[in-house]
Amino acid sequence: MDRPQVGLIGYGYWGPNLARNFSSNKRCALKRIVEIDPARRNKAAQSHPGVEVTADAADVLGAADIDVVVIATPVSSHFPLAQEALLQGKHVWLEKPITRTADEAAQLVELASAKNRVLLVDHTFLFTSAVAKIKSVIASGELGRILYYDSVRVNLGLIQSDVNVVWDLAPHDLSVMDHVLQSRVQAISVHGARHFGRYEEMAHVSLYFEGNVMAHLHVNWLSPVKVRQTLIGGDKKMLVWNDLENEEKIRIYDKGVDFLPLEDGYQALGQYRIGDMYSPALETREALATEVNYFLDCVERGESPMNDGLAGWRVVQMLEAADRSLAARGALVEL
Amino acid sequence: MDRPQVGLIGYGYWGPNLARNFSSNKRCALKRIVEIDPARRNKAAQSHPGVEVTADAADVLGAADIDVVVIATPVSSHFPLAQEALLQGKHVWLEKPITRTADEAAQLVELASAKNRVLLVDHTFLFTSAVAKIKSVIASGELGRILYYDSVRVNLGLIQSDVNVVWDLAPHDLSVMDHVLQSRVQAISVHGARHFGRYEEMAHVSLYFEGNVMAHLHVNWLSPVKVRQTLIGGDKKMLVWNDLENEEKIRIYDKGVDFLPLEDGYQALGQYRIGDMYSPALETREALATEVNYFLDCVERGESPMNDGLAGWRVVQMLEAADRSLAARGALVEL
Amino acid sequence: MDRPQVGLIGYGYWGPNLARNFSSNKRCALKRIVEIDPARRNKAAQSHPGVEVTADAADVLGAADIDVVVIATPVSSHFPLAQEALLQGKHVWLEKPITRTADEAAQLVELASAKNRVLLVDHTFLFTSAVAKIKSVIASGELGRILYYDSVRVNLGLIQSDVNVVWDLAPHDLSVMDHVLQSRVQAISVHGARHFGRYEEMAHVSLYFEGNVMAHLHVNWLSPVKVRQTLIGGDKKMLVWNDLENEEKIRIYDKGVDFLPLEDGYQALGQYRIGDMYSPALETREALATEVNYFLDCVERGESPMNDGLAGWRVVQMLEAADRSLAARGALVEL
Amino acid sequence: MDRPQVGLIGYGYWGPNLARNFSSNKRCALKRIVEIDPARRNKAAQSHPGVEVTADAADVLGAADIDVVVIATPVSSHFPLAQEALLQGKHVWLEKPITRTADEAAQLVELASAKNRVLLVDHTFLFTSAVAKIKSVIASGELGRILYYDSVRVNLGLIQSDVNVVWDLAPHDLSVMDHVLQSRVQAISVHGARHFGRYEEMAHVSLYFEGNVMAHLHVNWLSPVKVRQTLIGGDKKMLVWNDLENEEKIRIYDKGVDFLPLEDGYQALGQYRIGDMYSPALETREALATEVNYFLDCVERGESPMNDGLAGWRVVQMLEAADRSLAARGALVEL
Repeated sequence: MDRPQVGLIGYGYWGPNLARNFSSNKRCALKRIVEIDPARRNKAAQSHPGVEVTADAADVLGAADIDVVVIATPVSSHFPLAQEALLQGKHVWLEKPITRTADEAAQLVELASAKNRVLLVDHTFLFTSAVAKIKSVIASGELGRILYYDSVRVNLGLIQSDVNVVWDLAPHDLSVMDHVLQSRVQAISVHGARHFGRYEEMAHVSLYFEGNVMAHLHVNWLSPVKVRQTLIGGDKKMLVWNDLENEEKIRIYDKGVDFLPLEDGYQALGQYRIGDMYSPALETREALATEVNYFLDCVERGESPMNDGLAGWRVVQMLEAADRSLAARGALVEL
Repeated sequence: MDRPQVGLIGYGYWGPNLARNFSSNKRCALKRIVEIDPARRNKAAQSHPGVEVTADAADVLGAADIDVVVIATPVSSHFPLAQEALLQGKHVWLEKPITRTADEAAQLVELASAKNRVLLVDHTFLFTSAVAKIKSVIASGELGRILYYDSVRVNLGLIQSDVNVVWDLAPHDLSVMDHVLQSRVQAISVHGARHFGRYEEMAHVSLYFEGNVMAHLHVNWLSPVKVRQTLIGGDKKMLVWNDLENEEKIRIYDKGVDFLPLEDGYQALGQYRIGDMYSPALETREALATEVNYFLDCVERGESPMNDGLAGWRVVQMLEAADRSLAARGALVEL
Repeated sequence: MDRPQVGLIGYGYWGPNLARNFSSNKRCALKRIVEIDPARRNKAAQSHPGVEVTADAADVLGAADIDVVVIATPVSSHFPLAQEALLQGKHVWLEKPITRTADEAAQLVELASAKNRVLLVDHTFLFTSAVAKIKSVIASGELGRILYYDSVRVNLGLIQSDVNVVWDLAPHDLSVMDHVLQSRVQAISVHGARHFGRYEEMAHVSLYFEGNVMAHLHVNWLSPVKVRQTLIGGDKKMLVWNDLENEEKIRIYDKGVDFLPLEDGYQALGQYRIGDMYSPALETREALATEVNYFLDCVERGESPMNDGLAGWRVVQMLEAADRSLAARGALVEL
Repeated sequence: MDRPQVGLIGYGYWGPNLARNFSSNKRCALKRIVEIDPARRNKAAQSHPGVEVTADAADVLGAADIDVVVIATPVSSHFPLAQEALLQGKHVWLEKPITRTADEAAQLVELASAKNRVLLVDHTFLFTSAVAKIKSVIASGELGRILYYDSVRVNLGLIQSDVNVVWDLAPHDLSVMDHVLQSRVQAISVHGARHFGRYEEMAHVSLYFEGNVMAHLHVNWLSPVKVRQTLIGGDKKMLVWNDLENEEKIRIYDKGVDFLPLEDGYQALGQYRIGDMYSPALETREALATEVNYFLDCVERGESPMNDGLAGWRVVQMLEAADRSLAARGALVEL
C-alpha cells in the first residue's frame, strides 16, 4: 500500500493539532481538510498551503483518494460521520468521547469489525510517557496487587454549556483507569452538585472494579486551585502521578503496611513499611505524535488499536452510568 | 466559686496533654489522675508531682472535692463514665467521639441539661487559629454563599484494630464542617474498601448539607503521601486550607465564575474571574490551651459550649449513618 | 508618518518570535527578513509568505523602504550591524546583550543620540507582568526602603561554548535589577568555578548598589533542580518572585523586623512582625508583544525607551566588571 | 570504669535538651547541674528530681565524682570552663562554636591531647540521619567528584545583639561541609550588609575548597520565607537536601553533563544526562541522643571523636576569616 491519504473533518480546537501531526508524519499524507466555519477554513489554508480545504464532509467521506478519515467535530456528529466513513471503507480516527451513547458506540464497533477497518478513539493520555510508565510499572507487578486508584482533576474551569463536568473531565481518567487497571468496572456511583447552570459543575465518581479495586475521581470546575493528582495504591508499593510537575511527574514509594495473618482468619494490626522513593525519568515526547504513529502501525498491519472502538464504548458506558447515578443522587448503577 | 478542682481519667495517648494544660492553667487545679496501667501511673506521678494518682475512677467520679471530670479513656467507656460524672453533679470534658452511639450521646445531652452541668466534647480542631479564621471568614460573608466543602485527609496510617477509617479520621472534618457551615447534613453516602483487616481502610464520604452545599471527605490509611487539604468554594471567593503548611495554612482566592441570567431561567456560560489571593496571618497558639480556657469560661458562666453534647451527638449521628451507608455499598442514608 | 516598515536580520533562535510579533502588529509592516542560513531562510519564507527573504544584510541596512532594523544575530555582529543601521538613519531594535564591550555600547548610544533615532535593547523580562508589578510595587513605596535583592537562576543548562554562565544567564537579572532598584551599582565581586569547559559553569555575583542595597545573583548550569526565585527585602514588606509558578508568581509579605532606636545611636534587638501575605493577580500577556508595541510608541513619539542603549550599556558594563572580578578570584571591581 | 558521672554547666536554651539526653542514657549518670539563674535552677530541679542543682561551676569542675563536664554556656565562657575541666582531668562536651577565637580553640585541642581526654564539640547536625546519609553517599563515590556545595539558610530570624548572622547561622553549614567534603578550605570571601543593628544581618560566604570545590552559603535573618536547602553537585550525580521536608529530605538525581575531550585539551560542549531520581528513606531518630551515645563510646574507648576540638577549631578559623573578609568588603582571606 502507498502512504495512506488522510482527510480531516473539523478544524476547531483540536483539529489544528491533528493537522500538524498528520501532515508532519512522513508515513501518511494529509490531503484534505473539511471545516464549515469560513474563518477557520482560512486558517487551515494558511497553515497548510498544500492541503485542499473544503466545507463539505462528503469531499472526504466519499472520496476515492482518501484512506483515512480523522474526525474532530462536536460529539453529536461523531456517530453519523464515523458510520459513513466506515461504510465507505475508510479507516477512522475519532476524537473522544466516541459517541453520545453506548449504543451508537457499539454499532461503530460492529461496523468497523464487519468492514475490517481500524477504528481508533483518540484517548491521547494513553500515549503520554507518564501513562505508558504507569502501565508498565503496574504490569510488571512492582506495585503488587492494586488496592485503589484515586484521581483528582479540579480547577477553575470553563463551564460547558452542553455537558456536565463528568462528560467534560472524566473521560481522561476513565480511559486511563481502563487502560492501566486491566480490570472492568462493575458499578458506579456519582454524587454531584449544580449551582449555576444546567449541568453539574462538580462530581465525585466512585467506581467498583473487579478484584476489589476501589476507584474514585473528583472532577470540579469550581476549584480555586488546579490539581491533577492520581494515587495508585498497591499492596507492595504505591505510586503518585502529579501531572502538573514539569519533572518527577511519577513517584513510586516503597511504602506499605505489612500484616500477619491471624488464626481467626482476620489479619493483625499492620505495621508501616517505609523505604526509598524514586521518580523514573520520563521520555519527553508529544503524545499525539506517538499516537499518530501507532495508528499508522495499526492501519499498516491491519491490527486493532488498544484504544479501539471497544475502549471508546467502555468509557461511554461509564459516562452513561454516571449520568443515571447522578440523576438518582448517587444510587449505585451496576454495569 | 473557688477554682474548679479537676480530676482526669485516662493517661494514655492524649491524657498527658490534658494534664499538662489543666495543670498549667491558673484558673483551675488539677487534683487527681486516674489510670489503670501501672507504668502510665508512674509517668503521671513523675510529671505531676503534686497531683494524686490512683487506679480507680471512683476516686474522681464520687469525690466531693472534684468539680470537673476530664475523660480521656477508650470510647467504649465514655458513656458510663460521663453519665456517672454528670449524675454526681460534675462538669464533664469528654474526648471525641462523644460515645459509641447517637442514642448514648442523646442521653448524655439530656442528663447534662437536667443537671445543669457543662458537657464539652473535645473537638480540638475548632480551637486552632486556622478553623477559627475559616469560621469568621465564612460568617463575614466574604466567600459569599457556600457551594461546597471538600476535604482530603490521607496518609500511611496506623490501621486501627477496633474502628474503620471513618471513625478514626472523619470526626475531625465532621466537627469542623458542622462548626463552620452553619447548616445541617441531610443525607450521607459512603463508599469504602477493606483490603487487610476487619474494617475499611479507605472511604469516600459524600454529605448533602441543607442549602445545596455538597461536602466530600476522602479518608485513607493507605496513602503513600500525607495530605490535609480542604477546599471551600463560595460564589464570591474560595478558600484553601492546607494544614501541613507551617505558614500560610489558609489562602483565600478572589476567584470565581460570573454568570448572566438568561431569559429561559437558566444561566449563560460563565466567565472566569481571577483576582488577588491572600493568606491571613494566624495567631500561633496551642489549640488545647485555648479550649481549656474556653471550657473554664463556660463552667464559670454556666454557659453551654459550642462543642457541647449536641455537637458531639451530631458527629456520632453522621458516623452511624456512614456505617449504615458503607454496609450498603454507598446507599444514601437520610438523616 | 506611515506605518514603519521593518527589516529583520537574523532568523535563528529568537528571530521567529520577533518576526511573528512584528508581522502581527498592525502598527508596522514586516517587509524583509535577512538570514544567511539557507534552511532557515526556507522556514522564514514558509512562515511569512508575504515577506521578502534575502541573504544579505545590506538589503535591509541600506534600503530606502526600511524604517526599523531589528537585529537578532550573534552578539559579535551586534555592533557593526547596529552602527550601520543608525548611520543609515534607521531605528534599531537590538537583542541582548547590546554588544561585546561597554565601549561599543557607548558608541551606539552616542550615535543614536546624534542621529536622533530610537535604540532599544531587547530586555524582554522588563515587559512581563511580573516585573512590571515588581517595579510598581517598589515605586509605590509599599516595600519601604529596599534592603537587598537576591536572585537564584540555576538549572541543568546547556553549557555554552563561547561565553561563561554569567554572560548567559545574568543579563536577565542585571537588567531587572537595574530597572526596579532605581539605583546604580557601585562595585561587583564574582566567585565562580570551571569544571568542564573553557568558561565558568557556576558563579556567585555580589553587587553593591547605592544606598546600601546588597544584591546577589547565583547562576549555575550544573544544578539538578531548576530554580528561578528572587527575594526582595524592604524595611516595610518583602517580596518573593518565583517565576516557575504558573499562578502566584509574586507574593508580598507583610513581614519585617521592628527596631527601637537606642541612646547610644545603635538600635535595639529587633522584633518580628508577621502579617498577611498576598499574591496580586497578574495579567496574562506575551511580554514580547507588549515590548513591540512600546517600541512602536517610542518610534512614533521620538522618545527614548526605558531599555535604551544606556540601559544596555549598564548591563554590559556589569558583565565586563564581572569578568574582571572572576579572573581575580572575586576581587571587588568598582564601577 | 563505672558509668561516667556527668556534670552539666548551663541550663538555658540548649541545656534542658542535654540534661534530658544525658539523664535518659543508661550508660552514664547525670549527677549535677550548674546554672546561675535562680528561675532556671528551679526548672532544672523540677525536671530532674534526682540531680543536684547548684549555682557554682566549681561544684562540677573540681568535683572528684564528676568524670564528664558538659558545657552549654554563652560562648565567651567556653574557653575558661573547658580549660579548667580538662586541667582537672575531665572529659568535655562543649557547645558550638568551640571558642571565640581560633587561638583559644588550639589551646583546648593541645590540652585535651596532653591530658588524654575526650573533647567533643557539639556539631549536632552531623548526627542527623540526613547528614549521615550525605556523608555515606559522598564517601561511596556515588556522586563522583564533588564540584560544588551550595547552601541557603535564610528566614525571618531573631536578630542577635552580640554576633553577626555568619556566627549565628553558618556554623551549622561549615561543620557539615567540613564533615562531608573531606577537603580543606583554602580561602574565604564574605559579602554582607548591615541595615539595623551593629552586626551584618545577611551574608554571602564563598569558600574555595581544595580540589576545585566551590562552596557557597547564603545566610540571612531578613528573609520573608524560610529556606534550608543545600545542593551538592558531583560529576556523576547531584544531591539536594531540603531540611524543611518532613519526608524526602534528600533527593539524589542521576543527572549531569557528559563531555567529550577535545584535541586542544579543552572539552566539547556538554550534553544533558537525565536519569531517575530517588529519595532514600532516613531513619527517624533524635540526633542529640545519637551524639550522646557516640560521645560515651569515645570516652569508653579513649578515642577522639570526629567532631573533636580540631573540627571545632576549623569552624572557628573559618568564622574568623569570614569576619576579616566582611570587614574588607569581601576581600579574599587565605587560610
